Formats: sequence, C-alpha cells, structure tokens
Amino acid sequence: MSETGDMGLVVVGAAGRMGQTLIRAIHTIPGARVAGAVERPGSPYLGKDAGELAGIGIINVPIVDDPLPAFAKADGVLDFTAPKASVEFAGYAAQARIVHVIGTTGCSADDDAKIAAAARHATIVKSGNMSLGVNLLAVLVEQAARALDPQDFDIEILEMHHKHKVDAPSGTALLLGEAAAKGREIALKDNSVRVRDGHTGVRKAGSIGFATLRGGSVVGEHSVILAGTGERITLSHQAEDRAIFARGAVKAALWARGKKPGLYSMRDVLGLS
Amino acid sequence: MSETGDMGLVVVGAAGRMGQTLIRAIHTIPGARVAGAVERPGSPYLGKDAGELAGIGIINVPIVDDPLPAFAKADGVLDFTAPKASVEFAGYAAQARIVHVIGTTGCSADDDAKIAAAARHATIVKSGNMSLGVNLLAVLVEQAARALDPQDFDIEILEMHHKHKVDAPSGTALLLGEAAAKGREIALKDNSVRVRDGHTGVRKAGSIGFATLRGGSVVGEHSVILAGTGERITLSHQAEDRAIFARGAVKAALWARGKKPGLYSMRDVLGLS
Amino acid sequence: MSETGDMGLVVVGAAGRMGQTLIRAIHTIPGARVAGAVERPGSPYLGKDAGELAGIGIINVPIVDDPLPAFAKADGVLDFTAPKASVEFAGYAAQARIVHVIGTTGCSADDDAKIAAAARHATIVKSGNMSLGVNLLAVLVEQAARALDPQDFDIEILEMHHKHKVDAPSGTALLLGEAAAKGREIALKDNSVRVRDGHTGVRKAGSIGFATLRGGSVVGEHSVILAGTGERITLSHQAEDRAIFARGAVKAALWARGKKPGLYSMRDVLGLS
Amino acid sequence: MSETGDMGLVVVGAAGRMGQTLIRAIHTIPGARVAGAVERPGSPYLGKDAGELAGIGIINVPIVDDPLPAFAKADGVLDFTAPKASVEFAGYAAQARIVHVIGTTGCSADDDAKIAAAARHATIVKSGNMSLGVNLLAVLVEQAARALDPQDFDIEILEMHHKHKVDAPSGTALLLGEAAAKGREIALKDNSVRVRDGHTGVRKAGSIGFATLRGGSVVGEHSVILAGTGERITLSHQAEDRAIFARGAVKAALWARGKKPGLYSMRDVLGLS
Repeated sequence: MSETGDMGLVVVGAAGRMGQTLIRAIHTIPGARVAGAVERPGSPYLGKDAGELAGIGIINVPIVDDPLPAFAKADGVLDFTAPKASVEFAGYAAQARIVHVIGTTGCSADDDAKIAAAARHATIVKSGNMSLGVNLLAVLVEQAARALDPQDFDIEILEMHHKHKVDAPSGTALLLGEAAAKGREIALKDNSVRVRDGHTGVRKAGSIGFATLRGGSVVGEHSVILAGTGERITLSHQAEDRAIFARGAVKAALWARGKKPGLYSMRDVLGLS
Repeated sequence: MSETGDMGLVVVGAAGRMGQTLIRAIHTIPGARVAGAVERPGSPYLGKDAGELAGIGIINVPIVDDPLPAFAKADGVLDFTAPKASVEFAGYAAQARIVHVIGTTGCSADDDAKIAAAARHATIVKSGNMSLGVNLLAVLVEQAARALDPQDFDIEILEMHHKHKVDAPSGTALLLGEAAAKGREIALKDNSVRVRDGHTGVRKAGSIGFATLRGGSVVGEHSVILAGTGERITLSHQAEDRAIFARGAVKAALWARGKKPGLYSMRDVLGLS
Repeated sequence: MSETGDMGLVVVGAAGRMGQTLIRAIHTIPGARVAGAVERPGSPYLGKDAGELAGIGIINVPIVDDPLPAFAKADGVLDFTAPKASVEFAGYAAQARIVHVIGTTGCSADDDAKIAAAARHATIVKSGNMSLGVNLLAVLVEQAARALDPQDFDIEILEMHHKHKVDAPSGTALLLGEAAAKGREIALKDNSVRVRDGHTGVRKAGSIGFATLRGGSVVGEHSVILAGTGERITLSHQAEDRAIFARGAVKAALWARGKKPGLYSMRDVLGLS
Repeated sequence: MSETGDMGLVVVGAAGRMGQTLIRAIHTIPGARVAGAVERPGSPYLGKDAGELAGIGIINVPIVDDPLPAFAKADGVLDFTAPKASVEFAGYAAQARIVHVIGTTGCSADDDAKIAAAARHATIVKSGNMSLGVNLLAVLVEQAARALDPQDFDIEILEMHHKHKVDAPSGTALLLGEAAAKGREIALKDNSVRVRDGHTGVRKAGSIGFATLRGGSVVGEHSVILAGTGERITLSHQAEDRAIFARGAVKAALWARGKKPGLYSMRDVLGLS
C-alpha cells in the first residue's frame, strides 16, 4: 500500500460478469492497476489469470480465494458482490486500512451499520449506482426541483430500456424521482403518478409523473423534464454501456486514495455533497 | 371563382376560435385571401369585420349568415365546424363547384356518405388532423413499420401535452399507432400496450407500446420509436402552435384549386397517396 | 407601497413590444398587479389604457410620461428599456425605495456602477436573461462541468433558433459556454471550437464545442451535452414563447419584495447563489 | 446450395475486425449459419477456427484461402473487403450462382461495371452503408423532402460521433443530405450550409444545413429536422453498436435467398424501392 505510483486494486468476485468488467475498467483507466483478484473458495476459476479471463490478455494476476494477503498489498478493493460478502470485505479493508468501493445492493440496516463501523478504519465509498453520470444527474435534479415552484413547473420522468427488462419504472427512474421529491421536500410515494390511460383529468400540480418505454437493446436512458409555462428544462442521462458502473467504481477508488477513513458516497466523489 | 390571382377563401364559423385562426392563417400565406366569413344566424358577430375580430385589422369582409352568396363568389371554403353543418356546406360547395376543406371531426358514416356524394361536384379535402407534419409523419411511420421485421424492431409511441389535457394517449398518438399497425398488417387494439408499471415481464415481440407525459404548456409532441438490436429510428413531430391546423387547411385549399371534383385526403395534398 | 396585497408593478416602456408582454405577464401571475405604465415624453400612446393596448382589456392604468408619481405609489418596476433610461429609473427606484427588475442589456461598466450605487436604497434584480429556466440551466451546467473531469467528459453546446436569426451561436449558447468554462476554471475564448468542417482531427480534450441549427419558427432551444466513455448527460432548455422573459421578471419582482436593498441576480431568485 | 434449412454463409476477410463481427452476427440471427471463412493466402489465421477467433467458441469452420470450394457449398457470401477482392468474389459468386452481399466501399466505376456483369448470374446486394436503419431513414428523408415545400420547411442535418472521429460531417450525414436534395430535386453541393459562425444573415430558403457534435464514445447519431412555421418533423437514427452493419448484411443475404440474379440495394431489402 503506497501513495505513489498506480493505485493497486483488488477485484472481489473477479470471475463473475461484473468482476470481469471491473478488471477491464481498471486496465483502461490511467492511474490504476489490477493488484489482486479474489473468488470464493471452490470456484472453478481459482488459479486462472484474471486478465486472460476478462479478455485483456495475461496480466499475471491469478485468481485466489484468500482475500487477506491480497488486501495487504493493495491500495483498494472494488466490490460488487453480495451484502454478506461485502460486510466481511469491509472488515478486511479496515484491517488493511485501505479503500473499499462497494457497489453491492440489497444491504440491510444491519449490514449498513457494520459497514459504517468498518469505515472508522477503511475509506469506504458506497452507492447503489456507481455511474458518475447518474449520481450527478440526481444532484442536479434535486437542485432544479428545489429552485422551481411546483405551482409553475411540472416534473415528469421518462425512461427507456431494452426489451428484456421485466419491471417498470426502472430503479434509476425511481432514484431520480426521489431526488426530485427531496428537492421539493415531499414524499415521492404520495405524489407520484405511475401510469396514465383513458380519462385522467387535468394534471395535479406538484405531482411527479413517470413514463416507461421498452424496446430493442437500449442500455438505459433517463430524462427528467421540468415543464413550465412557455419553457421546459430537460435533464437526461444516456448509458451506452454497462461498463460505466465499473468505470465509476475505479474513479471512486482513485478519488478516495489518501482520504481519511470514513463512509463516502458518489456525491463526495463528484465534489457535490 | 377564377383560376388566377389569389385564391378567395370563405371561412365558416368565422367568429369562433378556430375560425379566427383560419382568418389569420389565410392572411399570412401567399396566394390566398379571405373572400367571405360566415356565422350561424343569430350570432352576435354578424356584420362585424372578420379581420378586425381576428386581430389582423379591418379587411372589409363582414361576417354574414347566408353561405350561398359567399360561396358563389369564392374559390374555396375552410370548415372546422360540426358534422351537420359540414354536410350542409358540402352541398353548397358542390352547387358552387368549389373547393371544400373539411377539418370537422366526429362525422358519422351517414355524414361521410353525404360528403362523398357532394364530392361528385365539389373538390373536397377531408382529414381528422389538418397538420401537414402529422399527416406526413403517419405516412412515414406506416412505411417504416412495413419495412422492418416485428421480430427485430419494437415500436413505441411517446407523446407529451400540456398539463390541462384530460385524456391519454392523445388522438394523434393513437393515429400514429394505427399507422404503425397498418404497416404491420395487424390490429392496433389487439397489440397495444397502454401502460407499464411494476412487474411487466419481458416486452412481447410485435406489440406497440404507448407512454404519456403531461406538463407545462406543451402544445403537442409525438415520437414513434422503432428500436432494434444495436440501432434505433425515431420519427417525431413537434407542434409549437395550434395554428398549424389552420395553415394545413389553407395549404390543402391551394393544392386542391383546379383539381377535378373528388374526395381527397391530406396524403393527396402531400403527394404521398 | 405596501407589504401586503398584490404587488403593484410599474412597467416602463409600456407601449413597446416587451412592455406589452410585461403587462400581460403581470396580468396572469397571481400576487402581482399593474400599478403604472410609463412611456417617454411625446409617445403617441400617452393617455391610452395600458391593458387595452396590450390586448387584455381595460385595466384603468393610463400610460403616463412622468415616472416619479408612478413609482411613488408602486412596490416595484419592470424595466426592459435601454441603458441610459435604466440608470435613470434605478435612481428613481432608490428614491422610492422599491424593487427594480432590470432586463436591459448592453450596459457599460459606468452604467453598472451607477446601478450598483442605486442598489444601496433600491432592491435591484438585474440579469441579461430573465428566463428562470436558462438561469437555472447555467447554474446546473457550471456544477456539472466542475464535477466531471475534462479528460473524461467532452462538453458540446447545441442551439436551434428560427430561420430569421442572423448570428451564431446565440447569446444564450455563449452564456452556457461561459458557465461550463467557469465550472472548469478555464477561459471560454481559448477553449471553444466554433465550427467543424472537413478534416478536423480528433477532438481536443478540454475543448468546448458549439453547433448551430436554424429553421422554421423555433423560439430557442439549447442543449449542453457532457459526453464521456459509455455515458452522456444532456442538460436542455426549450423556450416555447418569448413571454418567459417577462414572466421571469415578474417572478423576480415577487421574490425581491421585502428583501433589503442590494443588487441581486436571477441566481438569487432561484435560491442558487 | 439449397433453398431449405439455415442459409449457409461464407465470410470473406474472416479474420479481420469486420469479418469477426460478421461471424458473430450470423451466429445470433436465426436462419443463418457460418458455412465458410476465407482469408487471403499467407494469412497467419489460416487453419484456425473462425468461431473461436471471433469469440463465440469453436464452430468447426476453419479459415481457408481458397474461396472456390467454400462458395461451392454455400448459399451466400458476406463481403466487406476491398474493391479488387470484391470484384473477384463477385465472379466466383456468379459461377456458384449464389448470393453475394457487398458492403465494400470505394469501388470505381469500372469495379461497379464488373460487379453489375457478375449480377447476371449472382444475386448481389450492394450498399455503402449496410445498416437497415440508415437506409430506411434515407428513404423516409427523401419522401419527406419531396412532400414539403422548401419555402415552408427548412432542412437541417445534425450528427454526433465519438471524440476520435477526424472528419465532419459524417459520410452518413452527407448521405442523408443527398437523400433530402434528391427529394427536392436539387444538387446538395449547391445548396448546403456546412458551418455557421458570427454574422450569418437570415437562413436562405431551400438550403440544407449541417451541424456536427463530437464527444465521448458516441457510436453515431443522425437527425434530419424539417422545420416549418409552428411545427417540426425530426427523423433520427441512433447506432448503439457497429455490429448493425454486419446484422444488416446478414438480413440482406436472407432476403436475397431465392431471388433471381441481379443487382439489388438495401432499399430492395427494405421493400421500399
């Protein structure tokens, strides 16, 4: 662990789809390098080269099942695994006093408390969505919703995803809705209009509307529209590639390097908190 | 009635909101002039100047209640009134052997039959939506839907209107959906997905999805998206101003001048039928 | 002048196109009323009713040429006139200790100094663009440009205006470019790419590109795109109607009522400074 | 060669980037299978499995350097090579009386004449852009440009590509401009406005404007805007993935199977010629 040279990063869950994407992202971003690759004991990939598996050629980083030695010689850990594993990894990161970037979703309050405890010694960045763009958009939406009078501007949230997506609206659409509701100091659940069909009556001032499109191979597009009399603001995010979550995690790790221990969010990484 | 000089147009329902818009549209489009203005007997506006009422200054065309003399010295009639009135006006237009542009909606099969009969002597252009742009879009949508395999391309229709609109989807969105269904040779009603919320499952190939946005003062925006694997076509129309329906009617009249009697649509006006 | 009841507003330049738009805007926004209407001495409109002239019917506010008595019984002044006149009106507003909203453009440094001096006693809101939406967008653009690494995200500014516009890029596009440059702490003039044609070479990191569309009757649309690897943020403003500048001025006046004297901007009105 | 079962396709240039993309596209599209893979004599990839090289696993199709036996047992050939090679392959396809899909660009008039000659016995589909979407868009643009009066509707073409692109406007933007010009029966080169900066004067009726955006990793987006008074039509194509050209080629081959010999275009494939 050092403050100079490329930041050495361990990927946990390195043989999974997201793990491989993380390996590739580290490989393409200046200032970071793959320092270790961890899989669960018994994985058929143990011993294989993490770079070769991820399709970037041999990087001389074999996949191992013991995180401790890997963490000991690294500057940070990238973790999109599962709540139980992430809590355990946070403890090891605290022991090693390194950076731990957690993109794992579905943590319970108890899990979150344990992660917060680990953050006394580890520098943890945790977010349910690691995309820089989506996190920035949420901040901007909150501000716009706060600045504009709900009597004057109507908020609508539109999303489009590929034809295989089975639920609506998307989690990110709801996250953006929460940001808008926070800006207005209202509860989203009491003010959202999820569908419109047939006789809807006039739009209720202060409500937040959702609309969903599905088709093709669209990775994910979200727009928040603030429509007033005679003018409209639209704040949009377009994902071209699922790798943006991996890239955001690497960026978070680079940002966190040298920061004092604590629990940070992507807003901190963006300098917007 | 002559084939040279500006086309003289009579506006029926001249004191109403659409009638006034028609007067203004004729006033701004080269090649057309207001030749008459008709209102129902008993209207408080009889005798007033049609131009002054419409806000373009005095044009020396008083509003009258007898259509026959007005039609006799005109080249065409613009009519966004009501089915019963439009049927009657079509008869007078046939007597005068002039152009009759009908934007009236809600005609019964019986009304349509009478209008078709009048079209033996009158040159009638009739459409439920007189916007050049929307009619063109519908033609393009039908072609695109015919050209692309439903297994490969998903069709979604998005519309946005102002906060006062009380129904969803808009009539124009449904018109575009019908165009897409026609291109695919399917029935829209059996293949449309009107709302999405919660667990929707994967998108069904061949379905046509709708999504609705409401807010601010948006006059009317429609997009038809054809989303395939790795690529997407989007065909959109944006109305800035309700006057486009009046402008389209004037354009239809200018197109119809000198055409032989018959029943035409906006597709004919666009040269796309 | 009172703190209760509708805010009484004087419109200066009341017979001009923008003056009339201001009269109409006051008329439609709750909490404001037309308290006076001023034109230059010798105007042919002196003595006419300001409401009738603006097309909203008689409001019993005759257009006068002496601002002082009008200001004395008002709570605020809306002013889209000319630099010399605005400086003079600021002095009168200071005497009357009322709100002065200045949308006048082209003020010299000397004019601005005089307005700042008047702001010791008047509550002045001054901005080169009174649209709430554009001002909000500029704030969001500055933040986004600050948050995202110029090596990772490219900034492009696109604008579209009607076919009659004679210059490019629009003043608002440049204002948004300045906001982006401020966020990045660079000078726009040294980093902007105004046109692209033929062999351009690869895009230079850190530059800010402009692109211009012209056509039809488009009132004004601006998009700032921040394009990274695999994701894109787009922040857009769409004006449907030139009246948004008048509406913004009325909103600014309502916000300024009761604030202590000083020189404020639209950012203050939006609560974002 | 048979009319039943999956269509057997030979990929020429099978070890190149586009060749590999073609192998993958055939693999994912129902009704097609890889029947052969050809590279130039001396290629280091001769003898390797074409599927393994393309990353889809072993498909038992070794890369060979003699096209004749490969063509003899295939139903069609996919060819994105170079003019000289394509002319030669067209001759072999004519001998084998099979389908030849040519995406090769840069052919001379002489090359085109030889390909046309081969089309007496081969069923050839040739296009400079094999994307179904772009070809469809060009057809729609031509129709829209023909239907709308140049005095009433202004045509603008906007494109965005990634930061590495070194020229502007894109070839596809120019192709769409040509389609618009053809619809209007004018020459694009005499009527295009390639850049706007500074004092431009009012827009000239009948001109076709271009605007270019560059940034991030955008694969390719094109919009053709037809802007009139009070309304606008926008026809757009968005490429998410360069594989659409390969997919289009496979679709063209499937369409061409069983068609009589001749020289076809993607418009024929789309049923729009």
